Amino acid sequence: MQRVHNFNAGPSAMPLAVLQKVQAEFLDFAGTGMSIVEISHRSERYQQLQEETKQTLRRLLHIPDGYHIIFLQGGGSLQFVMHSANFLRRRGAYVNTGVWSDKAMAAAAAYGEVYEAASSKKDGFSYIPRLTEGAIREATDYLYITSNNTIHGTQWASYPKVSVPLFGDVSSDFLSRPIPIERFDFLFAGAQKNIGPAGVVVAIIKDSLVAGANPDVPAMLRYDTYVKHDSVYNTPPVFAIYFIHEVLQWLEREGGPEEMARRNERKAAMIYEVIDDSDGFYRGHADKNSRSRMNITFNLPTSAYEEAFIRESEQHHFVGLKGHRSLGGCRASLYNAVTEESCTALAQFMKTFRKNH
Amino acid sequence: MQRVHNFNAGPSAMPLAVLQKVQAEFLDFAGTGMSIVEISHRSERYQQLQEETKQTLRRLLHIPDGYHIIFLQGGGSLQFVMHSANFLRRRGAYVNTGVWSDKAMAAAAAYGEVYEAASSKKDGFSYIPRLTEGAIREATDYLYITSNNTIHGTQWASYPKVSVPLFGDVSSDFLSRPIPIERFDFLFAGAQKNIGPAGVVVAIIKDSLVAGANPDVPAMLRYDTYVKHDSVYNTPPVFAIYFIHEVLQWLEREGGPEEMARRNERKAAMIYEVIDDSDGFYRGHADKNSRSRMNITFNLPTSAYEEAFIRESEQHHFVGLKGHRSLGGCRASLYNAVTEESCTALAQFMKTFRKNH
Repeated sequence: MQRVHNFNAGPSAMPLAVLQKVQAEFLDFAGTGMSIVEISHRSERYQQLQEETKQTLRRLLHIPDGYHIIFLQGGGSLQFVMHSANFLRRRGAYVNTGVWSDKAMAAAAAYGEVYEAASSKKDGFSYIPRLTEGAIREATDYLYITSNNTIHGTQWASYPKVSVPLFGDVSSDFLSRPIPIERFDFLFAGAQKNIGPAGVVVAIIKDSLVAGANPDVPAMLRYDTYVKHDSVYNTPPVFAIYFIHEVLQWLEREGGPEEMARRNERKAAMIYEVIDDSDGFYRGHADKNSRSRMNITFNLPTSAYEEAFIRESEQHHFVGLKGHRSLGGCRASLYNAVTEESCTALAQFMKTFRKNH
Repeated sequence: MQRVHNFNAGPSAMPLAVLQKVQAEFLDFAGTGMSIVEISHRSERYQQLQEETKQTLRRLLHIPDGYHIIFLQGGGSLQFVMHSANFLRRRGAYVNTGVWSDKAMAAAAAYGEVYEAASSKKDGFSYIPRLTEGAIREATDYLYITSNNTIHGTQWASYPKVSVPLFGDVSSDFLSRPIPIERFDFLFAGAQKNIGPAGVVVAIIKDSLVAGANPDVPAMLRYDTYVKHDSVYNTPPVFAIYFIHEVLQWLEREGGPEEMARRNERKAAMIYEVIDDSDGFYRGHADKNSRSRMNITFNLPTSAYEEAFIRESEQHHFVGLKGHRSLGGCRASLYNAVTEESCTALAQFMKTFRKNH
């Protein structure tokens, strides 16, 4: 079997060492005589696994006391509903950096007043907009941001300090770099980028925030249900959480988010360098100071070139380089598990392609 | 590795042949050079996989035209919210056969008037109650039933014919026997019993029902969102759906729900026979004519006996025989993937245990 160079935007590449371990123990999880998909979520062995997952995450991100770690289903899209159903009482402020924050805001509008505290919509979401003085109005319950924007290829370089609770959708750069947890009241990440398979969301939520949530929300959509029942109010997605456990162990062995940040910086630099040195043959979508280390979006001179680029890349065992359907163009997603070798190969391919065309 | 005798109530035993296939191709799904957890849900290969899953299910259950098959997250517990948010306009009727229908009714009460069309609550949910003449009141939107009750060990032998849409939670006996789909407007099943890992729900829903749903529900909680977007409105739980695909292929090779019904009948008979021939040492919880083929619930003379039974069973490589915490006692769950060999071993163990005590 030849592993491809997987630049999928998510679901995406996972660490080979993790895949191999999951495979090796798939018929017999931890000597139980059962597959991980066959064990009870009420068993001691599962409880231990989940607890280890949380403790490892707590170490990796230096999560302070006073924050809960919970596991949910329904992807980021259900979080668009839940964050507002639980916490929007008066006004919710959003920094609109693209499709995902737009969707979060649209879902929240069903629960209260929402407004854009900042937006780069008029410029095609090509940068992370600044929060100006007075951008956050009175009676605002929270400020919501999207840490990394997979479609437009932008990323917050550092997070804002604000006087209202800060909410973060960190789905697409979770654990790719350190993050100042204490600046946030609520963070969530769909797993299917840096940490596991699709089908589970990890959320980190401040105890004081949970306590003030709207009590009129159905139990399955209330964060306090997940907190009180330690994420086993009903059957959790056991396999996905187990897989995250393995990814976190791998991350810890490799040096954690700090080391991932260094690698991701190097990986992204390789591709951006090719773009910047191409005399305009490759044109990056994002402004330089808003560039994402996770998703590099770019165009070629014409869509015919772009089609040829995708076609030839596939012949050379590159996968996932087509841009999101809403933006077009090309995109390379460089999550934690994408190797430096794959990035070197892509950089080389891009140079060769340019020379040949 | 020794496989245990897995009688877990869910997540539960999966077919060994399926586990082996999933393991064998875990690093390279269908020659893609990627693991199934690394492929894009927008890829042709995934779309084909999902379509095959639906078509196989359609064949196995003889699902007529006019019904959609969709995949959702959040388990049965989120369906307790969704069925009512979407379809409860006036009154919802429920047959209360235990914890799960009780929870469905409680969740639905937030969306409208609910009532018990029948209940066996006063008798400890030991049977499936009859629907008497006039049980369904006027202005009732649907009748909701729980096909099999994992906790109390009861199961509908045949389904009622009613003049309102029939909704069925078939989580715990889905594909364990044929089912007259056309009698239902809406059916759902959490995967983690007979068909796959935890983390996905399969629903079968009549087109005409979807069309009349409440339009004021958030997109992620509306069935028509899943119908219109063929279950990829957002990222679906790819691994869980892939696993279901493999289980359905296995089921088709083995002879489908018809053959499963025969096997499950034989398997359950083995255990019930030991109970009935034990001179009251083992006492079945369910009335004989409401007995479940999936979950056999029973007590021993005292809780001390029950503890000894569980303890010794574990020493003999039996897993999952402890009853649900709300009912106590013992329980053996005999889902499709539990082999006749495991049931023979359990029957023998029960006889030996009785003799030794």
